[in-house]
Amino acid sequence: MIPSPASSERFPRMMGEFDLIKTYFTRPTKRAVLGVGDDCALLALAPGMHLATSTDMLVEGRHFLSTVDPYRLGHKALAVNLSDLAACGARPLAFTLALALPSVDEKFLEGFSQGLLDLAQAHDCELIGGDTTRGPLNLCITVFGEVPAGQALLRSGARVGDDVYVSGALGDARLALEVLCGRLNLPSNGLELTRRALELPQPRVSLGMALRGLAHSAIDLSDGLLGDLHHVLLASGVGARLNVDAVPCSSLLQEQPIDWQHECTLAGGDDYELLFTAAPESAPAVQALAAAQGIPLTCIAQIIASERPGELRLHDKHGAKVVNQWHSFDHFAAVNT
Amino acid sequence: MIPSPASSERFPRMMGEFDLIKTYFTRPTKRAVLGVGDDCALLALAPGMHLATSTDMLVEGRHFLSTVDPYRLGHKALAVNLSDLAACGARPLAFTLALALPSVDEKFLEGFSQGLLDLAQAHDCELIGGDTTRGPLNLCITVFGEVPAGQALLRSGARVGDDVYVSGALGDARLALEVLCGRLNLPSNGLELTRRALELPQPRVSLGMALRGLAHSAIDLSDGLLGDLHHVLLASGVGARLNVDAVPCSSLLQEQPIDWQHECTLAGGDDYELLFTAAPESAPAVQALAAAQGIPLTCIAQIIASERPGELRLHDKHGAKVVNQWHSFDHFAAVNT
Repeated sequence: MIPSPASSERFPRMMGEFDLIKTYFTRPTKRAVLGVGDDCALLALAPGMHLATSTDMLVEGRHFLSTVDPYRLGHKALAVNLSDLAACGARPLAFTLALALPSVDEKFLEGFSQGLLDLAQAHDCELIGGDTTRGPLNLCITVFGEVPAGQALLRSGARVGDDVYVSGALGDARLALEVLCGRLNLPSNGLELTRRALELPQPRVSLGMALRGLAHSAIDLSDGLLGDLHHVLLASGVGARLNVDAVPCSSLLQEQPIDWQHECTLAGGDDYELLFTAAPESAPAVQALAAAQGIPLTCIAQIIASERPGELRLHDKHGAKVVNQWHSFDHFAAVNT
Repeated sequence: MIPSPASSERFPRMMGEFDLIKTYFTRPTKRAVLGVGDDCALLALAPGMHLATSTDMLVEGRHFLSTVDPYRLGHKALAVNLSDLAACGARPLAFTLALALPSVDEKFLEGFSQGLLDLAQAHDCELIGGDTTRGPLNLCITVFGEVPAGQALLRSGARVGDDVYVSGALGDARLALEVLCGRLNLPSNGLELTRRALELPQPRVSLGMALRGLAHSAIDLSDGLLGDLHHVLLASGVGARLNVDAVPCSSLLQEQPIDWQHECTLAGGDDYELLFTAAPESAPAVQALAAAQGIPLTCIAQIIASERPGELRLHDKHGAKVVNQWHSFDHFAAVNT
């Protein structure tokens, strides 16, 4: 802590760090042994469970626009982390929040905490600790889940012959971003519809848990389909053959020129759907799961043996080869090219 | 992820996000079930153990100066988190790192990761996951430790009659900061000596573990002694009587005017020593522990019953009352006064 001379003044009249935490971010915990307010939070794991953990940092201008509604920002900050738990097949338990704020903006904090805690409650995931500081707006959440030992879904489990599935529809988040940035137009209600995909993604938590024992590998789609699939292929030491026209997208995106469709579905990012691989003989079980969960699960590719792990062969619905002209999001790529 | 048009260019020639993680922040894990490189990391807890977790965010200009040596910044970023585990009596297991960087500065990353991982190795604490993004420099670490169920040291356990101890010497970090900011002068080697306290704090991990079953309550000193003690008093529903002249400080600080001594020791912040309370009859055991660990443990106060929980009565070595004119660091207090 670097105190400025001004900080030697007596207690503030307005909200300070500890009031802020107490007002907006302290809730009774049901499941954690100890929640917000001590040096550490304490969690107990049920016997036979492993702890699954993931951390994501969101920065203004990189992960969200300055105009975003605070409620939706709170929702999304937790959603992207829950999506990582989903990709491992883990059940959410708890999370911590570290927050840098330029100033105490109570209107922002009210909306942000509400969006955050509403989603947390929907997934029975408790806020158990955190940190607040002054600085350029930055949100860092670490999420904790539990998964039976040996049953976590990993990127490294894809097997030759597996079908590759994605949940839901891809590309709407990117479509909304293009509209918000003024690079595309949509019919009147189109922005609000796609904007929900960008700002209120629904992490596929129950789907992830249901995929334990069925999927051989899984990842969540955050940086763009092709790049995220590439991670699975590399980790598994295999390749894939992918039908670019099989990738599911919304009717709004289907009305866009084919180049935009492909850009948004293949390299759009921010989808927070699950990609997973499963044996071909599991196809009926996968479709039964889709029906049970009310979530489309679409087969878009097959895992192939390859001498170049990570190899990705693209083709269209006619079987014609498609050149991979897309790449997924890399936070530092744009800076250094 | 909000891609800029520039990010649609093909793969970068310079280091991207995933190379950066692989080069600087991926090490084989010995203890974690799964480390860096999947959607989640996986940790197993030994039977009967609770998970202790804490998160701290460090922002340039608030928690460190822009001139800080990257190695020391890496050390400190983890040290402040390990200090929270120490305050709970937990044994470090692992940590995650989220890092926002203005650009890929390999010289910075090399020093930073070395300082971080050297301290991690010293405490057998593995880096198991994280996130990197572009943005104003921001470091967020979440640390995981284990503590036998029911044995965690809490802020809420102080009992009337307890002695209040602090480890080590307080105030040198603040003294260094005052010199660095040009508000104080020290003899030639004084800055380097005190600067080590500011930039290379040693978290009291083994002391924290040894205090299990001996201390009734504990907290780590990060925001200033009086403020941190106040947290213990409030959480425990008690008051304290504290001898301001009993607070241990270095010989360098002893040479400073008494007002500066008190400012630095009582409200300095960034000490990362432990404050704990223990029964008077435990005094010999506390001193035996001090000898065994080679760390001074100094009794500075007594816990008293109070109708106003949090009440703090200060006196000097002659027993004369001292008015509390200090307050501890609050990240938003300075902004709002």
